[in-house]
Amino acid sequence: MLIRFAGLGLGAASFTTIFAASSNNTNVVDPSYDSSKFMAEPVTPRSTLIKDKDDMKVKMELFIMKIQAEFCRALENEEDPSKKFFVDRWTRSEGGGGVTCVLQDGKTFEKAGVNVSVVHGVLPVDAVRQMKARGKDLVGKELPFFAAGISSVIHPSNPHIPTVHFNYRYFEVTQENGEKMWWFGGGTDLTPYYLVEEDVRHFHSTLKKACDTHDRGYYQKFKKWCDDYFLVNHRNERRGVGGIFFDDFDGKSSEDCFEFVKSCAESVIPSYVPLVNKHRNDPYTSAERDWQLLRRGRYVEFNLVYDRGTKFGLYTPGARIESILMSLPVYAKWEYMHSPPDGTPEAKLTEILKNPKEWI
Amino acid sequence: MLIRFAGLGLGAASFTTIFAASSNNTNVVDPSYDSSKFMAEPVTPRSTLIKDKDDMKVKMELFIMKIQAEFCRALENEEDPSKKFFVDRWTRSEGGGGVTCVLQDGKTFEKAGVNVSVVHGVLPVDAVRQMKARGKDLVGKELPFFAAGISSVIHPSNPHIPTVHFNYRYFEVTQENGEKMWWFGGGTDLTPYYLVEEDVRHFHSTLKKACDTHDRGYYQKFKKWCDDYFLVNHRNERRGVGGIFFDDFDGKSSEDCFEFVKSCAESVIPSYVPLVNKHRNDPYTSAERDWQLLRRGRYVEFNLVYDRGTKFGLYTPGARIESILMSLPVYAKWEYMHSPPDGTPEAKLTEILKNPKEWI
Repeated sequence: MLIRFAGLGLGAASFTTIFAASSNNTNVVDPSYDSSKFMAEPVTPRSTLIKDKDDMKVKMELFIMKIQAEFCRALENEEDPSKKFFVDRWTRSEGGGGVTCVLQDGKTFEKAGVNVSVVHGVLPVDAVRQMKARGKDLVGKELPFFAAGISSVIHPSNPHIPTVHFNYRYFEVTQENGEKMWWFGGGTDLTPYYLVEEDVRHFHSTLKKACDTHDRGYYQKFKKWCDDYFLVNHRNERRGVGGIFFDDFDGKSSEDCFEFVKSCAESVIPSYVPLVNKHRNDPYTSAERDWQLLRRGRYVEFNLVYDRGTKFGLYTPGARIESILMSLPVYAKWEYMHSPPDGTPEAKLTEILKNPKEWI
Repeated sequence: MLIRFAGLGLGAASFTTIFAASSNNTNVVDPSYDSSKFMAEPVTPRSTLIKDKDDMKVKMELFIMKIQAEFCRALENEEDPSKKFFVDRWTRSEGGGGVTCVLQDGKTFEKAGVNVSVVHGVLPVDAVRQMKARGKDLVGKELPFFAAGISSVIHPSNPHIPTVHFNYRYFEVTQENGEKMWWFGGGTDLTPYYLVEEDVRHFHSTLKKACDTHDRGYYQKFKKWCDDYFLVNHRNERRGVGGIFFDDFDGKSSEDCFEFVKSCAESVIPSYVPLVNKHRNDPYTSAERDWQLLRRGRYVEFNLVYDRGTKFGLYTPGARIESILMSLPVYAKWEYMHSPPDGTPEAKLTEILKNPKEWI
């Protein structure tokens, strides 16, 4: 069943009422969590969320619902007041569902997507391969799994505002021998069209601060992982100026890991939104817009050819394609043998994409 | 070394002279083949082409050079006379090279690419996997190979002209035990934005005629293979209205197979160019242009996620990325949850893409 709130420009505050009106939920707000702070009712039934409130599955779901709403609100603050996120709450027949929030054709944002999904069921071997990073060797062919994640890509209209992507996720997989494995993964990375070094330093510093409160070695390690991961191999260039990326994160207790993931996800707004605010009224030329579209073509190349998250989605039966491909820009462009002339700002960016550097 | 004839609007008739002038070649035309009929000098040295003229590798190379020139000329006839194909002759350091012809931002053609490549060397295991269709089990990890092919995608400006793609190729691979295997592959398929049944019947009939002169069963078999191959699996829709597709084609003598491939490649112009001519001055609205761009987004999805030819290219060391990704449109668009309203011409096309039918 797909519940859609089309074109309502729904504010979070008004959501609970409308949702309740259309779904026979009780209007009594349970003290365990306040769904008026979310973009939609969580995926898991309220009774389960309350009963299993100490289970990491529940904690992660409620956390990503909160992050989704906070980020959507922060973006709406940078947008024309008449333009709000469209909220799409969907269910997956094989188990679970999600809440997809999209704002398209705004003044500030050409396409902004913030997606929460909480899915469970049995994982086929193709999907297992896509979800596994190196060293995560799962035994079995079809394994019971649970995955909760938030994933977002923001493509602004103005070429002087970078694109941002973040994704934080929690997995549980039960092996054939009954052993349960769990891990977190995620990251935040920036894709500018024009390089403003000060902005990139702000972005990386904010992420580093989040990392440092947990382990002084995390930032360096996950910064490098990010540069290695977001590689458009066939072009030998990175998708952007990086950020942090990690997978198979299960070193300490799940509580410790969760606290780290929380810090990362909470650093998205302070790392990115100031850059939106700073550049949203910058003047730009049609040549700059053109360059933005060409770079968006490269973004599409990475997402469709390499991104493990996208592949995981495309190979998962019952996956919601529109939520997975929400990461694609509205417009992208390809031009045969395009190469920016030496000495231009476009060439300066390209140089950095070919040779990632330390920002702080 | 990349030899480029930038912006010359080079006609085939003038090519030999200019090429000779710029490369110290002799101006004496050898009677074995007349390169003035090609878009550029073939990849393999003239002396080898003459010495090995009965070798299938040579016959295929000269044939695809001829087809490339004929097709480019036929398209230029439908274009503004001032707009000609840009000819890019390139060499591959690992062995071989190609001739890429591109016409971009024309009046009739937004992007037309016709690429010949003749490459040889050693094939890594990833590329072997991509080039193999079912049942073509090669023994070994790194195998000497030869591949000659022509590949073309035409994205017209007017949404009432369909996009066409064709690709014909010849492979030789030597296994670890010294056994040489060879096969042909290829196909031609049509991707309309608006369905004109009469046009689709013309296209399929022309392909059927080419097939029928060789085997009365080929068309049915290769038409179905085409429908199965050009499937955007995650959307459960075909890329277009199909055509013919075959791979691992080695049933009879290589001469017989070559004759069939020749008939197919020679049917591209009569199957497609009349549709360009018929619709190139059709009026269209911005909504129709928009639909064309959304469908081009799906084209990108197929090419980057599923197409074996593209994957083969992306995994081959030293492959020429610009020639491989030449198939991508200038502009593509993605819109969250786009779905054409029932009863519209857009919905009619979508219906056919979900349920391929017999056209003749």
